Amino acid sequence: MLNTSWTFIIGWIFLICRMNPVEIIKLKRNNYPLTENQIKFFIEGYLQGDITDYQMSAFLMAVYFNGMNDEETFYLTDIMLNSGEIIDLNFLDMPKVDKHSTGGVGDKTSLIIAPLVASCGIAVPMISGRGLGHTGGTLDKLESIPGFNVNYSVPDFKRIIKETGVVLIGQTGELAPADKRIYSLRDVTATVECIPLITSSIMSKKLAEGADGIVLDVKIGNGANLPDKEKSVELAKKLISTAKKFGKKAIAVLTDMEEPLGRNIGNWLEVEECIEMMNGSMIPDLYKLTNVLSGAMIFLGGKASGIDEGEKIAGQKLIDKSAYKKFLEIVKIQNGDVKYIKDWSNLKRGKFKRQVLASEDGFITEMTAMDFGYASIELGCGRKRVEDKVDYLAGIILHKKCGNEVRENDIICELYSGSETKLESGFNRLKDAVRISKTKPPERKLILDILD
Amino acid sequence: MLNTSWTFIIGWIFLICRMNPVEIIKLKRNNYPLTENQIKFFIEGYLQGDITDYQMSAFLMAVYFNGMNDEETFYLTDIMLNSGEIIDLNFLDMPKVDKHSTGGVGDKTSLIIAPLVASCGIAVPMISGRGLGHTGGTLDKLESIPGFNVNYSVPDFKRIIKETGVVLIGQTGELAPADKRIYSLRDVTATVECIPLITSSIMSKKLAEGADGIVLDVKIGNGANLPDKEKSVELAKKLISTAKKFGKKAIAVLTDMEEPLGRNIGNWLEVEECIEMMNGSMIPDLYKLTNVLSGAMIFLGGKASGIDEGEKIAGQKLIDKSAYKKFLEIVKIQNGDVKYIKDWSNLKRGKFKRQVLASEDGFITEMTAMDFGYASIELGCGRKRVEDKVDYLAGIILHKKCGNEVRENDIICELYSGSETKLESGFNRLKDAVRISKTKPPERKLILDILD
Repeated sequence: MLNTSWTFIIGWIFLICRMNPVEIIKLKRNNYPLTENQIKFFIEGYLQGDITDYQMSAFLMAVYFNGMNDEETFYLTDIMLNSGEIIDLNFLDMPKVDKHSTGGVGDKTSLIIAPLVASCGIAVPMISGRGLGHTGGTLDKLESIPGFNVNYSVPDFKRIIKETGVVLIGQTGELAPADKRIYSLRDVTATVECIPLITSSIMSKKLAEGADGIVLDVKIGNGANLPDKEKSVELAKKLISTAKKFGKKAIAVLTDMEEPLGRNIGNWLEVEECIEMMNGSMIPDLYKLTNVLSGAMIFLGGKASGIDEGEKIAGQKLIDKSAYKKFLEIVKIQNGDVKYIKDWSNLKRGKFKRQVLASEDGFITEMTAMDFGYASIELGCGRKRVEDKVDYLAGIILHKKCGNEVRENDIICELYSGSETKLESGFNRLKDAVRISKTKPPERKLILDILD
Repeated sequence: MLNTSWTFIIGWIFLICRMNPVEIIKLKRNNYPLTENQIKFFIEGYLQGDITDYQMSAFLMAVYFNGMNDEETFYLTDIMLNSGEIIDLNFLDMPKVDKHSTGGVGDKTSLIIAPLVASCGIAVPMISGRGLGHTGGTLDKLESIPGFNVNYSVPDFKRIIKETGVVLIGQTGELAPADKRIYSLRDVTATVECIPLITSSIMSKKLAEGADGIVLDVKIGNGANLPDKEKSVELAKKLISTAKKFGKKAIAVLTDMEEPLGRNIGNWLEVEECIEMMNGSMIPDLYKLTNVLSGAMIFLGGKASGIDEGEKIAGQKLIDKSAYKKFLEIVKIQNGDVKYIKDWSNLKRGKFKRQVLASEDGFITEMTAMDFGYASIELGCGRKRVEDKVDYLAGIILHKKCGNEVRENDIICELYSGSETKLESGFNRLKDAVRISKTKPPERKLILDILD
């Protein structure tokens, strides 16, 4: 008895000494690794209101500078994950695999991958985000389909995935609420680009979904959220090691984001591009990426012996229109207007249009993804403030891609917007985005590496 | 006309691009120097409520890591200085010099220096602070004199200094309000120990006082607020260069803070020690430091040809009791109980007493200033929370100092407190503070360097 009391008292003294918000910020600031209890005290104290926003933001900035080791990242993820509900999908008698992209320009792969993989008998429980900075968001794209609902509670999430094997929603308040609060703070305190914080944010949400495998599309290049290649590789490794610590299978695909992916940028324009591809169109880079990511998911789901075989299956599901059929099922069950989808070939475009023309003969050597991303925001595809309304029919259609040969005055791309002023702003934002050279540039690789 | 508009428009576009709180935090985070306008936008936006506490704390942490160059520190100081009133003391036809200490344990020099230097015909406009962390504060010491008022408005500040040539008050809301708000945020976000932030905080207050010269006592050692020597030297240099940029004369004295200064620690106990010294007692280290700092002030005030000559004058003013007479004048005009002062030899002590004895024969090699500081807080000399009440008669009297020879059971120090529990806490806090060794340690230098 005496022993127990003493242990308690000593433990308590230790807590008193170290468990004060300033002391914990200072430890991280001075580059000491934090214990599970210290991280728990800090995150839970924050959620309970004992630790203030300004203390959390000082802490986040200290983490930005000094990072977190694998242990700390694991604890942080675990605490954030356990701050909310963890969905149990064990009632589904099938593998459950999800995909996550770190965000890019023109990156609409989820819209094809989710139905495609689901059509292979693998459940895809997918929670996505909105447009952020210069990058688009899957939720905004889905909402460009009239009626499409992305706001479901956990019981509805389970009901939908049980029925169709796939569900595409936004983060509910029930899942990883700590991440939701911390994320909004990071956004306004310049602490977004930080590997352990990105890792814990992604993984706490993904782990809450109930998948047992996850494929990560980690973007590299000017259009990615982390600026340099080294950092992206580090992030990919941290994501995989964290997933594995939670007993999940994970594969990371490092992919190029120097130029926009595919042909269209903008919410409905991207949905249209996906529908086209699911109906037989060939858009080389979009096809390639979709195929590799789906292949990796099919492999993780145990339906192929490797990514290669997974890719073959994925190609087949696209050709035989299984993916498209599943996509229509999703639209229907999530209350979207199926007629609007089927009517896709009657082009829906913003009222105002402008073209960007080639200034000279030559080869296109650069189409800066970040500029195209910001230009699309100017056109109305995204938000500058939380309260901004999205223009679903605004966007950019690329007629040329890097490496293509052009003659002076060839159309490089077309811009659409519902507002003439916005059209001008978008056009101006593209001034330095395209480079033309007399010599053909070397071919760029889209898939840079695959890690597991 | 067109030119002017264009300049305006371009300037405005530049502002829009860079003048957003997140962008400014990000610039500092990425180690870019900020412009005057950017710092101004950030500090003024904060005071006006457009920039939040959490953005300010993220910014402060970024400054902690990436620092600020001399230009930025100057701008920050200038903006903080101009956030409030700047006292004009030109109506005083005499030199005006102040002293500032970065804070230590047992550091009561201000109480002697202010009257001493004023008695030489140099005005001393002194704004002091309260106890902070393990270090004491001049205001708390002054308030241990019954009735002594440290809360005056700027007009009263001017009236008092006109009458007596010296005034000792606390920071009013009128002077450098930006510092006041930022300082309280730094205290709870672990961003105190940062050279440009310390510099701008000290200098914005000191420049607002209206002095034309300033002597800086920069502490080095475990009891100082900056842990390592290198940082303290850096701080001293930054303080001097900033003062000079504002056209002020400045001298920095680097002094040892490995052991407490003088003999007493605690508010009234320190006042008593000062009265004793102003009445002829010799307390070697306290005398030496007081003398050098006063000498430097007398030199800056133009009443001596160098610090050495200033020291001689200072010694004289102590011996002929001019300093003590001026001290009594200060107490009187600031509403303090002069009888209580004159009655100093009737010792006033906390009710409970305990002694720390030597554990063995030998020489004292260490009396850790920081431990003595924290022990004095435990006894009741300082606050753990803003709302705590100070016990003015609590404290520690040192019977031995570093280098002294002791026999087992000799009294090393006496502890006083108004509470038996606090007495115990204070006693326990001193457990490892004193080291005894068989060999005599080398003598330690008190004045480590003088920079100007």
